[in-house]
Amino acid sequence: MSKFTDLALEARELNPDIEGVTERHEQYGDITLTRINIESEQAAQKLDKLCGSYITLDAPRLIDRPLDLFDSTSQKLAEELNMFLKSLDAGAEVMVVGLGNRMITPDSLGPRVAERVYVTRHVKQYMPEAFDFPLYSVASIAPGVLGSTGVETLEAVKGITERVKPDLIIAIDSLASRRASRISTTVQLSDTGISPGSGVGNLRAGLNRETLGVPVIAIGVPLVVYASTIARDTISMIAEETGLHKDEQKLISLAEKVIDEKMDGMIVTPKDIDSIVEDMAGIISHAVNMALFGKHYEEVRMLIA
Amino acid sequence: MSKFTDLALEARELNPDIEGVTERHEQYGDITLTRINIESEQAAQKLDKLCGSYITLDAPRLIDRPLDLFDSTSQKLAEELNMFLKSLDAGAEVMVVGLGNRMITPDSLGPRVAERVYVTRHVKQYMPEAFDFPLYSVASIAPGVLGSTGVETLEAVKGITERVKPDLIIAIDSLASRRASRISTTVQLSDTGISPGSGVGNLRAGLNRETLGVPVIAIGVPLVVYASTIARDTISMIAEETGLHKDEQKLISLAEKVIDEKMDGMIVTPKDIDSIVEDMAGIISHAVNMALFGKHYEEVRMLIA
Amino acid sequence: MSKFTDLALEARELNPDIEGVTERHEQYGDITLTRINIESEQAAQKLDKLCGSYITLDAPRLIDRPLDLFDSTSQKLAEELNMFLKSLDAGAEVMVVGLGNRMITPDSLGPRVAERVYVTRHVKQYMPEAFDFPLYSVASIAPGVLGSTGVETLEAVKGITERVKPDLIIAIDSLASRRASRISTTVQLSDTGISPGSGVGNLRAGLNRETLGVPVIAIGVPLVVYASTIARDTISMIAEETGLHKDEQKLISLAEKVIDEKMDGMIVTPKDIDSIVEDMAGIISHAVNMALFGKHYEEVRMLIA
Amino acid sequence: MSKFTDLALEARELNPDIEGVTERHEQYGDITLTRINIESEQAAQKLDKLCGSYITLDAPRLIDRPLDLFDSTSQKLAEELNMFLKSLDAGAEVMVVGLGNRMITPDSLGPRVAERVYVTRHVKQYMPEAFDFPLYSVASIAPGVLGSTGVETLEAVKGITERVKPDLIIAIDSLASRRASRISTTVQLSDTGISPGSGVGNLRAGLNRETLGVPVIAIGVPLVVYASTIARDTISMIAEETGLHKDEQKLISLAEKVIDEKMDGMIVTPKDIDSIVEDMAGIISHAVNMALFGKHYEEVRMLIA
Repeated sequence: MSKFTDLALEARELNPDIEGVTERHEQYGDITLTRINIESEQAAQKLDKLCGSYITLDAPRLIDRPLDLFDSTSQKLAEELNMFLKSLDAGAEVMVVGLGNRMITPDSLGPRVAERVYVTRHVKQYMPEAFDFPLYSVASIAPGVLGSTGVETLEAVKGITERVKPDLIIAIDSLASRRASRISTTVQLSDTGISPGSGVGNLRAGLNRETLGVPVIAIGVPLVVYASTIARDTISMIAEETGLHKDEQKLISLAEKVIDEKMDGMIVTPKDIDSIVEDMAGIISHAVNMALFGKHYEEVRMLIA
Repeated sequence: MSKFTDLALEARELNPDIEGVTERHEQYGDITLTRINIESEQAAQKLDKLCGSYITLDAPRLIDRPLDLFDSTSQKLAEELNMFLKSLDAGAEVMVVGLGNRMITPDSLGPRVAERVYVTRHVKQYMPEAFDFPLYSVASIAPGVLGSTGVETLEAVKGITERVKPDLIIAIDSLASRRASRISTTVQLSDTGISPGSGVGNLRAGLNRETLGVPVIAIGVPLVVYASTIARDTISMIAEETGLHKDEQKLISLAEKVIDEKMDGMIVTPKDIDSIVEDMAGIISHAVNMALFGKHYEEVRMLIA
Repeated sequence: MSKFTDLALEARELNPDIEGVTERHEQYGDITLTRINIESEQAAQKLDKLCGSYITLDAPRLIDRPLDLFDSTSQKLAEELNMFLKSLDAGAEVMVVGLGNRMITPDSLGPRVAERVYVTRHVKQYMPEAFDFPLYSVASIAPGVLGSTGVETLEAVKGITERVKPDLIIAIDSLASRRASRISTTVQLSDTGISPGSGVGNLRAGLNRETLGVPVIAIGVPLVVYASTIARDTISMIAEETGLHKDEQKLISLAEKVIDEKMDGMIVTPKDIDSIVEDMAGIISHAVNMALFGKHYEEVRMLIA
Repeated sequence: MSKFTDLALEARELNPDIEGVTERHEQYGDITLTRINIESEQAAQKLDKLCGSYITLDAPRLIDRPLDLFDSTSQKLAEELNMFLKSLDAGAEVMVVGLGNRMITPDSLGPRVAERVYVTRHVKQYMPEAFDFPLYSVASIAPGVLGSTGVETLEAVKGITERVKPDLIIAIDSLASRRASRISTTVQLSDTGISPGSGVGNLRAGLNRETLGVPVIAIGVPLVVYASTIARDTISMIAEETGLHKDEQKLISLAEKVIDEKMDGMIVTPKDIDSIVEDMAGIISHAVNMALFGKHYEEVRMLIA
């Protein structure tokens, strides 16, 4: 039975005893930060994730939308993102890529963040005198999804990458989780790029250093649980509680039946997903802007907006 | 175990042998029309629906969004709606009420239809000479939901009804179904008004002839399946297939556990719910406009828009 | 030549010498606050405004959207609004009414504010134990506009007022100004209600203590300049500079010609009106929430959202 | 005094006597079709347009939004567009490019059309067996605008063009007109691509065969009149009527004064621009889909949607 999740944290929970993985937990007020490093190819394969560093911010209280926690989550995310920016030169080129489909609410996180990131590339190019302090040259695009453009996301991003020649890409995407309770309460940051086949929009080819020739930092928020995951979980739970799990084959065929009949293409989502996505886009874009512009944040904002 | 559904058709399927219910099926091309009449109070209680007439249009092929079927579904709905308008005087007052929350996509059907209905009431009042043919005086409101207004929908509608004094109300609402496959493929029309507790928005008090003093025709489209329904169904199915159903109590507690942990407030929805709701709002509002204005439809449109 | 404006401040500027009007200016950082009191019926008629108190907050720097000024404008507006709430009992009923058309961007301020105000009326009614401190019972409605509902705004508000029985109404509306530079930089607060014929939505009958039997506080933001105003102003300016104003009649007929040919129903608006309206809705709703809930603001927010 | 317009038709009206331009009018029911060919470089320079063929569809009655005229305008546009597709091979690659900013209503025509065009490129690539008839391989992108992406539109389109290698590009854009009455009633089709500096979004570099290496068909709809155009026109009109035009210099300085003070960055737009843009996006995308897929139109729609 497939155990699909975009979160390294959940993949780890399902395989707690695999070697080649380190895991560390830190607590910052309401936020639990988990650092998972996948260090061996073997571990990577078992977890169905790439080798690299995964940082998860979990703040269950975000479900109540308290303004102060929005702020501190954004702040913490900016700090962690900053670590990944350390090696960049002062005037480096950074390209933000908002993945997903603007027209499908739970898949619209990427485009919504992309449009809120402060872009400076054109100002540095055409009015270099506007900024009297060194800052990154930031571009921000939303390439759309294969189903609406007819163009693979990787192809589109490659094409623009060759023109813009960024030193680093920050990719934003909606993720699929295994638990509805994670929707709107979790952010994953990683240095591995976007995995093939992940996300709501079913990106086919991965976006990472191998495919794009540039390091790709990924920021994702679980906004979707596949209805089929819920069905499979329900069945597993019953199987365990009733001793039915001895008859594995029967279970599998039951699951397939339920899923085929009732849940094909369906997702489980909170009723107020529209405002949740908007809030999370605010948190992420604020973090990205703070990480990219630091103390010049407000200044850049005024010049750009 | 609760068997909640807003559709008389599904309530009937769960209780096929109850007396006091008549059921008739008709086929029109791709559309299956089912007429269910709940005739006794006893039957009404068992089905958890009011006595009255329920007409269901089912067109599974609507899932592919073929333009011709949009048109014929709209047409058929207009014809059936027309039957309910027969007793009205030529210049009668009709008030369309779009129920639900504009800001929550699957709950936004009512407000979306309300804003597309052609209103003539003010034109008849202020420029009576604009129309040289008799036509209904149509008003169309979207009163919002308790959670965002602080005002019971019934209170708000009552307040406006006392001012507008319509001869008939047509209420539009999103419905909850038991099957994801019904989302976007079914329309229910009935002369019983809106039932208490139905809909996504959890209307507390019913809108009907008793509460409003005017006949209330209801048009609803299933746009939501509660995740808890899916979980309960999965469990039922397994129970039946495995003989587990003998142990009813254990099942119930299992269901509660799954639901509490994973699915509180969650709904199951297709990924492209945004465009589905928009399409269904088009079908319903077109039907309402055709039923209300008949052969003067295009003329009214031009004068009003 | 008509000198139409919804702002008392602009009406005063056009008639600086009329008696029966007091005017006071105060400066708070970037915000200029002007208090205009229209005290005689004669003055009121000349200014085409009702007798009463008009407070205008002007902050030209708002055009750059600096976050700190959003905050201080909101704060100042809340303070001034608070003055008007002083006479209310601790548990009084307040109804916010968001006027205008949700579907027309510059006219959507009212509905956008209405949906962001924290409503407590239903919670106090159904779960009185939720709040262990006294607070207003707040309802918030958006009745729509005559052209889309067929119902006069006054009728709809009256109908709901009779049910909700508020002690005070706070009405929010988009205003028409004479100067494009005022769009997004000015807020007008007054105790006179909404004037007949004002606003983008062309409300016919006024909302005020006479028509509703309850005091009506109005908050408005200029979001529109009629294109005809610009044309008329251009002509006036030329007339003055060229000595052409001696030939008044010719000027008037010229103006009519230009306006009829080119500008009927047109408005002048900034290109980014969408985000301007959203920002102003944030400032106003934040001020209303702070004024209504004071130190319990965050608590109410968490309980309600 | 600048006479800026994106329409060849208006440029011609301002310069009716220039040589090297042919002009032909045809009438189809409510639609006036004008064919303007700019044939000499000299004429091109005077009109501030590129040499080539410009087809304008003018249907003043579109302002009433009659459904039948939507349909016939779409049909006529498809026919004319078809002429430009004649030389393409049966299975050619076509790329639709929706220019403009999704977040600014009058500038959102391009992106709205792009998302409604039926894309077949990925289906032909991954499931070639899906279509048993020859058809174009269609991709459809919306590259965003410089101000929000930091990337020149031309750069982005070039990057993707090098990957997708289309045989033809169809670019969609909002245009600036000199007359408010043209908004929503006119469509311009041309084989010259998109001119530098045109459009609401102020594209700097042109998209055409020279810059992209592929023929570029442009479809544009006037959705904006600059407020400064209105002011300049008002002044011109007065000047002519009053004999003031003898004093040209004074006029110019007057115009600059009015424009600087009141209208910088302002546009003139109808109040219901939101629904106008949506309607025009429907007309254009329908025409593009009909032109691209001809009799297989409905078949492709069902397979793709």
